[in-house]
Amino acid sequence: MLYRLVITESQRHHDQIILQPEQEHYLRRVVRLNDGQSFIAINGVGDGWQVELTPTGGQIISAIQDNRELPIQVSLMVALPKGSGFDDIVRCTTELGVSRLYPIISDRTLLKPKENKLVRWRKIAQEASEQCERLIVPYIAPPSSFLEAIQHMEANFPRFIAVARNTDKHLLNCLNPDDLPSQITIATGCEGGWTTKEVQSAIAHNFQPITLGKRILRAVTAPIAIMASISAITET
Amino acid sequence: MLYRLVITESQRHHDQIILQPEQEHYLRRVVRLNDGQSFIAINGVGDGWQVELTPTGGQIISAIQDNRELPIQVSLMVALPKGSGFDDIVRCTTELGVSRLYPIISDRTLLKPKENKLVRWRKIAQEASEQCERLIVPYIAPPSSFLEAIQHMEANFPRFIAVARNTDKHLLNCLNPDDLPSQITIATGCEGGWTTKEVQSAIAHNFQPITLGKRILRAVTAPIAIMASISAITET
Repeated sequence: MLYRLVITESQRHHDQIILQPEQEHYLRRVVRLNDGQSFIAINGVGDGWQVELTPTGGQIISAIQDNRELPIQVSLMVALPKGSGFDDIVRCTTELGVSRLYPIISDRTLLKPKENKLVRWRKIAQEASEQCERLIVPYIAPPSSFLEAIQHMEANFPRFIAVARNTDKHLLNCLNPDDLPSQITIATGCEGGWTTKEVQSAIAHNFQPITLGKRILRAVTAPIAIMASISAITET
Repeated sequence: MLYRLVITESQRHHDQIILQPEQEHYLRRVVRLNDGQSFIAINGVGDGWQVELTPTGGQIISAIQDNRELPIQVSLMVALPKGSGFDDIVRCTTELGVSRLYPIISDRTLLKPKENKLVRWRKIAQEASEQCERLIVPYIAPPSSFLEAIQHMEANFPRFIAVARNTDKHLLNCLNPDDLPSQITIATGCEGGWTTKEVQSAIAHNFQPITLGKRILRAVTAPIAIMASISAITET
């Protein structure tokens, strides 16, 4: 099992990888690689290479042919939960194949995310992608209001909003595994759920209300359960 | 949405509920109920009642007819992950309908759970059941070795062990939603996975190795993904 790290496109020149000082330090001192030993570099947008450590950086040995992605791109709009709940959401949904995460300041969101939170979330997504062996690192948008985020969504794909204690269809009854759209967007609420006004505004923007099953899921559990469910019906 | 609390069978006498002092304190001071207002009491094994607060405790108004359970009982044997990872597993899998949790000290488990951990996990399961509106609180066994735990499993139901990077069938390809067994057992590893010896010993005890999809899931994510997947194929 080779060590994996994410590089930017500017770090690759033909078959050479220029390592950042901290990456080189990590590979040599923590992972304890010597020259001639291999690791995996990924660019976070779908490419990966087996790379051999050299005195000047890394030498690409071969490209990795590996598809760990879901057959459908899933964008999650997540009303920010309390505390560090969104950290867990980023980590787990990345492992489960999410494409894009939109942290939402909803009417009931109590968290006021500090500037450095976005940097932290992107770092968590990067580490989770390395760990779960994806070649893609999910995009995490800057926090925004629900309406602002909706403006950034591509309009041509199905949109859903999870609403607790409703009698709508289950998300999975709205997706046909044999005829999947190429992407979907799903919005989940924070503690206390979406306000009626938010749900109405989502419906006005072509979101379809859905349920996530018989039990009331916490704000942190709902997005994770969504990704596991989509993986369950599309990858088996 | 009424406040929910778990009572023991000894607290119920016909249609009267004897509240513990801390329950009464919580209902009156935190939830701010007055006499004549209602809450829900559950016994954790499938019964629930709407109860009216009275000067002497609670008066049962009606029984709750409500089934939030999966159509299949799922027992999870979970090799204890680092830190407080098992807390998250208890919380999320309870929300997703698990029946029984067996914390396992596996060959690669680093955590040495203290005596009070079991009390804490059972409290988390109780709170998660209240929150997600189940009437059943999952059973959590005391931590034990893998082999010890296997002795306690009923022998007549399918058993699976999740093994990363193998080429076995996906869990869901081993379950037919139209012909479900009444219960199953699934074992998931901790950081570093099961040892070869553990997998062999599981196979000798009729466990079938399975995968959980294309990506490598962390020890905390795997049991949560299993429960969400089973809910996905059995409840929709």
